[in-house]
Amino acid sequence: LIKEFETEGDEYVPTLGIPDEEFATIKKLITKEEVRVITLAKLKLRHDMTLWDLGAGSGSVSIEADHLLPNGRVFAVERNPQCVGFIKENLNKFNARHVTLVEGEAPDCLETLPDPDRVFIGGSGGNLFDILEAVDNRLPAEGRIVLNAVTLDTLMAANEFFENAGYQVEVTTVNIARTRPLTDYKMFEAYNPVYVVVAVKE
Amino acid sequence: LIKEFETEGDEYVPTLGIPDEEFATIKKLITKEEVRVITLAKLKLRHDMTLWDLGAGSGSVSIEADHLLPNGRVFAVERNPQCVGFIKENLNKFNARHVTLVEGEAPDCLETLPDPDRVFIGGSGGNLFDILEAVDNRLPAEGRIVLNAVTLDTLMAANEFFENAGYQVEVTTVNIARTRPLTDYKMFEAYNPVYVVVAVKE
Amino acid sequence: LIKEFETEGDEYVPTLGIPDEEFATIKKLITKEEVRVITLAKLKLRHDMTLWDLGAGSGSVSIEADHLLPNGRVFAVERNPQCVGFIKENLNKFNARHVTLVEGEAPDCLETLPDPDRVFIGGSGGNLFDILEAVDNRLPAEGRIVLNAVTLDTLMAANEFFENAGYQVEVTTVNIARTRPLTDYKMFEAYNPVYVVVAVKE
Amino acid sequence: LIKEFETEGDEYVPTLGIPDEEFATIKKLITKEEVRVITLAKLKLRHDMTLWDLGAGSGSVSIEADHLLPNGRVFAVERNPQCVGFIKENLNKFNARHVTLVEGEAPDCLETLPDPDRVFIGGSGGNLFDILEAVDNRLPAEGRIVLNAVTLDTLMAANEFFENAGYQVEVTTVNIARTRPLTDYKMFEAYNPVYVVVAVKE
Repeated sequence: LIKEFETEGDEYVPTLGIPDEEFATIKKLITKEEVRVITLAKLKLRHDMTLWDLGAGSGSVSIEADHLLPNGRVFAVERNPQCVGFIKENLNKFNARHVTLVEGEAPDCLETLPDPDRVFIGGSGGNLFDILEAVDNRLPAEGRIVLNAVTLDTLMAANEFFENAGYQVEVTTVNIARTRPLTDYKMFEAYNPVYVVVAVKE
Repeated sequence: LIKEFETEGDEYVPTLGIPDEEFATIKKLITKEEVRVITLAKLKLRHDMTLWDLGAGSGSVSIEADHLLPNGRVFAVERNPQCVGFIKENLNKFNARHVTLVEGEAPDCLETLPDPDRVFIGGSGGNLFDILEAVDNRLPAEGRIVLNAVTLDTLMAANEFFENAGYQVEVTTVNIARTRPLTDYKMFEAYNPVYVVVAVKE
Repeated sequence: LIKEFETEGDEYVPTLGIPDEEFATIKKLITKEEVRVITLAKLKLRHDMTLWDLGAGSGSVSIEADHLLPNGRVFAVERNPQCVGFIKENLNKFNARHVTLVEGEAPDCLETLPDPDRVFIGGSGGNLFDILEAVDNRLPAEGRIVLNAVTLDTLMAANEFFENAGYQVEVTTVNIARTRPLTDYKMFEAYNPVYVVVAVKE
Repeated sequence: LIKEFETEGDEYVPTLGIPDEEFATIKKLITKEEVRVITLAKLKLRHDMTLWDLGAGSGSVSIEADHLLPNGRVFAVERNPQCVGFIKENLNKFNARHVTLVEGEAPDCLETLPDPDRVFIGGSGGNLFDILEAVDNRLPAEGRIVLNAVTLDTLMAANEFFENAGYQVEVTTVNIARTRPLTDYKMFEAYNPVYVVVAVKE
């Protein structure tokens, strides 16, 4: 049964592409709408899969993934208390039924979670190598990791790890600019580029 | 009830982000995976809406929209016989239940269709103005049109129409490049840029 | 004779690519180094040509063009008093010998200038059409105009004018992002996209 | 004295931004006009410097640098016989006075050259590490290397070398698309992205 996201009046939550401003968040932190849906597409979700969302931030990826995993489970892992607060608020607002919030630091807090089919890494807090090693230990063959890098350092570290660990790697660079409605002139404003790294376990 | 897209073995159709190469198509014509999901996000689909997909090409947008409209309807309009063949093949392969193929030329063939809540225009075959006028006549207030332009001419014509007709307009430019898996070197290959024009009726 | 730009010690002014931070300016206003040199390349300057730089801002395009026009002349036109101050300071700092500052509003202040071979329009202050018409009246056949647009409105207006006036038009979109030296992490920061419109009179 | 590039009639060579199609070359190999001038800007050339152009290809960077180094020297190093032929033809056509063609394989053929102030690496033929090491041995403090990477592998290898060798590193990503003149529709065609790596020796 598809979830009903409608609220009173004309409001509704789209089945894909929730506007950024609908999430409680710090503006700079959110995975922007366009990048978010490319990330979800790259995850290649099947309806019944288990997804780990590591460094969930505002929970926006988990919440949109929830629509795409009607028979699945999402674990939104976050250590920052302020972000944990945002995630709680957003999970409640959007009635995300299959998302479990996991407060704590990866990789330690991953031990008690069920094995993932898919893993999204939106932020790594400096211990990327440990997280990737822990994820690699738990991910089955044909499992898939998507990592969004905004620095050359993270892009390089991730690529190196995945190549050494025998993953198939593809990198998609996303450069988006957009005008804003309700302005006199349509000026294009650029987002910073994001490197979407997709790694598939053999 | 969510549709089951699994076939035998490990194969499955992801609930978002069907790989381009899974569609019967001419390679140059398809709305590429990354642009397709941004397009779907911009359409802001509600589960029960009616979508017109004008110039459906290979039907890839209609087919992915079908997942996002479990209680809705999609009309894939296409006049080119070769493309019509691709759409038939793809609708069958992906078991798209709510998509109706409409063979014919817009705007004429739109008359008998139910009014749309959302309209996607991926190709216009030279009569863009007539199509936009016909769509405008049928679209209710708060309706939404998404148009993907790859030429400056189409971008300008669409923007001018929407401004004159009193729509709110936002333009998102999408520049994507990607490496390919299973190559010795990860060389970035660019897609041509796409201008995703979003117009909301007041 | 090549001009000597060296000052004492190891300092020197490069013959192309003066760093943005070397100019007195408001940071947001300057034509950034990468866009500036593409602009200069598109102008296709011959050593003895006359260039009008309309809406000169900080004068950065005029000053770099000066190197490329050892037997030519540059007229930097600017109406904003603060910008005029920046230009004076920069012309002095960089010892730009062939640049004449013209304080005033285009198109009126163009009347007394010698006819241009090349025109750069970096800002138009709302009267773009009048400026283009005045420029068109003065530009000889095979003359060339380069206009940098950051809004869809300017891009459209310029393209429409040039097409109606029978110019050959080419548009180059420039999307640049860069890391900064001396930071712990190399994070890519995007510039807003610029549309470099090149129009050649037949 | 500025060189005269004019030939008979209206033809002339611009002092910056020679069109790609003016060079004898294989189309895919040339450093495209927009990327070429960004590269030249990043080299921060002083009029009397010595530049090594390693993997010179068609010689386009050397030839445009020649204009910017009226009292300097350029060494265009190339091992591929077909490219050597292109360089000879182009040096002759554009009357590049300060460019010396060096046929041979880097790093071996660098031994007899005078020390460089600036080095451009456009292609490395698989022995990038050896070339960078040889360059590093010859480059004085405050020397500057610019390397254009089109693969993630080269970007990573270069970045790692420069960081280990104590260089200041900045990376600029260049995404260009352009329409073509004399077509019915202005369709934007993308170049593949280029990563311009700038490394400054301390």
